Amino acid sequence: MSKPSLPKGTRDFGPADMAKRNYIFGTIKTVFEKYGFMPLETPAMESLQTLTGKYGEEGDQLIFKLLNNGDFLAKSDKEAIALGDSKKASFSLSKKALRYDLTVPFARFVVMNRSDIAMPFKRYQIQPVWRGDRPGKGRYQEFYQCDADVVGSASLLNEADLVRIFDEVLTSLKLEGVVIKLNNRKILSGLAQWIGKEDDLTNLTVSIDKFDKVGVEGVEKELTIRGFTELEIDKVKRFLSVTGSIEDKLNWISENLDSSEAKKGVEEIREIIGKVNITGLQAAALELDLTLARGLNYYTGAIFEVIVKESGMGSVCGGGRYDDLTGVFGWQGVSGVGISFGAERIMDIMNERELFPLDTAVTTQLMFVNFGAEEENYCVKLAAELRNQGIKTEVYPESTKMKKQMSYANAKNIPYVLLIGSQEMKSGELTLKNLDSGEQTKVKKESLFSLFS
Amino acid sequence: MSKPSLPKGTRDFGPADMAKRNYIFGTIKTVFEKYGFMPLETPAMESLQTLTGKYGEEGDQLIFKLLNNGDFLAKSDKEAIALGDSKKASFSLSKKALRYDLTVPFARFVVMNRSDIAMPFKRYQIQPVWRGDRPGKGRYQEFYQCDADVVGSASLLNEADLVRIFDEVLTSLKLEGVVIKLNNRKILSGLAQWIGKEDDLTNLTVSIDKFDKVGVEGVEKELTIRGFTELEIDKVKRFLSVTGSIEDKLNWISENLDSSEAKKGVEEIREIIGKVNITGLQAAALELDLTLARGLNYYTGAIFEVIVKESGMGSVCGGGRYDDLTGVFGWQGVSGVGISFGAERIMDIMNERELFPLDTAVTTQLMFVNFGAEEENYCVKLAAELRNQGIKTEVYPESTKMKKQMSYANAKNIPYVLLIGSQEMKSGELTLKNLDSGEQTKVKKESLFSLFS
Repeated sequence: MSKPSLPKGTRDFGPADMAKRNYIFGTIKTVFEKYGFMPLETPAMESLQTLTGKYGEEGDQLIFKLLNNGDFLAKSDKEAIALGDSKKASFSLSKKALRYDLTVPFARFVVMNRSDIAMPFKRYQIQPVWRGDRPGKGRYQEFYQCDADVVGSASLLNEADLVRIFDEVLTSLKLEGVVIKLNNRKILSGLAQWIGKEDDLTNLTVSIDKFDKVGVEGVEKELTIRGFTELEIDKVKRFLSVTGSIEDKLNWISENLDSSEAKKGVEEIREIIGKVNITGLQAAALELDLTLARGLNYYTGAIFEVIVKESGMGSVCGGGRYDDLTGVFGWQGVSGVGISFGAERIMDIMNERELFPLDTAVTTQLMFVNFGAEEENYCVKLAAELRNQGIKTEVYPESTKMKKQMSYANAKNIPYVLLIGSQEMKSGELTLKNLDSGEQTKVKKESLFSLFS
Repeated sequence: MSKPSLPKGTRDFGPADMAKRNYIFGTIKTVFEKYGFMPLETPAMESLQTLTGKYGEEGDQLIFKLLNNGDFLAKSDKEAIALGDSKKASFSLSKKALRYDLTVPFARFVVMNRSDIAMPFKRYQIQPVWRGDRPGKGRYQEFYQCDADVVGSASLLNEADLVRIFDEVLTSLKLEGVVIKLNNRKILSGLAQWIGKEDDLTNLTVSIDKFDKVGVEGVEKELTIRGFTELEIDKVKRFLSVTGSIEDKLNWISENLDSSEAKKGVEEIREIIGKVNITGLQAAALELDLTLARGLNYYTGAIFEVIVKESGMGSVCGGGRYDDLTGVFGWQGVSGVGISFGAERIMDIMNERELFPLDTAVTTQLMFVNFGAEEENYCVKLAAELRNQGIKTEVYPESTKMKKQMSYANAKNIPYVLLIGSQEMKSGELTLKNLDSGEQTKVKKESLFSLFS
């Protein structure tokens, strides 16, 4: 019998981790709901054809496929297998796969339920996704995504609300140094027009997307490889070096990028910022970052990325507007805008900065030490009364050594124990011990309720 | 492009379903925590070798295996593939699989963390599991299990607490006609001894397990097929026909099944019932059901099953004591006792009996109708103030037709809308409309906070 182990890139979450995760998810959920987003959950398994072709060549290879049940070889593509063509063979061996993100299942849901959904449709979804990435530090094969999207509304009030949600969640979690970066894909389209490369927008955005990691020289190298000329690259470099206030940057765009797309992008940014400023933000800073590109192809308007300064971590949230979420499933022109919280990264930063409140951990509030059969009966009765008041309590199940019982209470971080022997049962004066200070006090049964609820 | 669809036996849960599911899961979770159980979550994927061989021949075939990523054919068992031996081939094509239940992952977790766990270890786990069963009414390929287990304690106080948990959860959910059936595997062992078939306990329990579906004749048939003699079957029939109060039944056992195992079983039942009676139960009835066998092989002591009368449904909960949960992973002799709530069946009964409270559904409490740019700004500001008080609110994102905005509010079951035009902005007297009654009232801005929080 071999020692059991976990698949690489997966994790168990014991009570202490669960408490922290629930704290983060709970905060996100509460804020989503305050803005009118409603919960959705989709199954872990999707039809393979729902998922393939949605994440690019590279993404497709990271999708976890489920082997067909039963005699799967009977219906397999024997030619592809004989030729050793794993990719082709896989489609005859698998009909289902694990979801790779929450966006594609959401799009599928919207299309399948189009006649029942009231538009604009605002949903949030907090569920794990699975990717066959090489596991590494902070990179897992199973991890949670926390998404909120509005579809069926072009109003930029949605963008402004999503910025407020970033701010409200991260402020609630007490994260300092939060910067919400804003840009607009239309400005990048305008840039492509300006340098005469409007047909090559993808290569342009993919290259600019690497700016924060590789700097101007890196982007230059990328663009060269992708066949951009020196003159074109020079213009991109001028664009990337624009500095100053939001107004300065927008003015530079307006003056230099003379295209309707760029103009529209500038207008949208002004409008979003205007709508955010109606309330202002609590703790986050809102910045216009012209170098922000976001890799994903489907964004067409505002794009967001959130960083936490001095965290040594990339972005902790992202999002943007897309014009055609559901087109791939046959329903054209459904515009929407969505955001996603990177809960795993947020958790790492909060752990490092010790931002989790001490009372996050769910634990028993009060344990009864077990002194024997008669005392146990007394305790079981009293425990039931406490639970009726919503107090978390347990009676140690055996009358073993005091030391063992105490070490259980300590290991579980239970703050108080009750010591009830025959004398206490008679007098009704119970001995309450604070395990933190070691202090013992006498309490009347009745006063327990108010002490703990 | 084909119309998207869901894999058979899987479901999406939109906002209304999510609210109901969260209501059930939340109730179960709250009660588990009141008794000192702490949350655990394990990954969806386990190593294939962790799962295989744990669920019997039949179960093994229902495990969903994940196709290895990358060029999986390169390392495949080409001989098995050529021979069309799907079963053998599958082990060379797959290293990971989806969890089939929560018990085996729990056992793996306990063994992997044995040095860090304080015993007795009380954990609960509420997560989906996956089985390649043929989908049908009430039978899904993805469904939730809600388990609570205590390991490392032989005390029967644990059994009594689990009975109280059944009662408390189902009473909280307002289910009527709940019967908690209790039996003990030791009595069934005693029965096997009595009829001289102690080496054939599995065949005996598997046959008796079918009693509630097929009756005495059915069990008789089963036992005949499994090679039991007429004399042996006659004794089993006498056992199955014992009626009367709990005391009557226990006396019959004591008088007839003269074995130490049976005696121990009777003692345990008396002790569990005694410990339950210290507090009594809220609404459920506790019954001794000698015909209760529970199919699973690993139970060795108390066994439970919970039914809801007149629901037309089988058991909604189950559980029992096992003496060796972790032996299969190399750690012998860890005794424990656990229960499981069948949340899907409970949900079906509650739907049929309309037991979900109306306010289960999470929805926006108050929507601002959008009359134009200036009004929107006013509303956005006020909405932010309301959200600061924890009130769920949204501003309709566009100043479209009133009818469209109202039908959105209705579809989302939003109970109130605020109508704020230029006049209201000036006077500060806002028009609040109750969408249920249609009634309109004037309210001051300040009084909104107390109205909705």
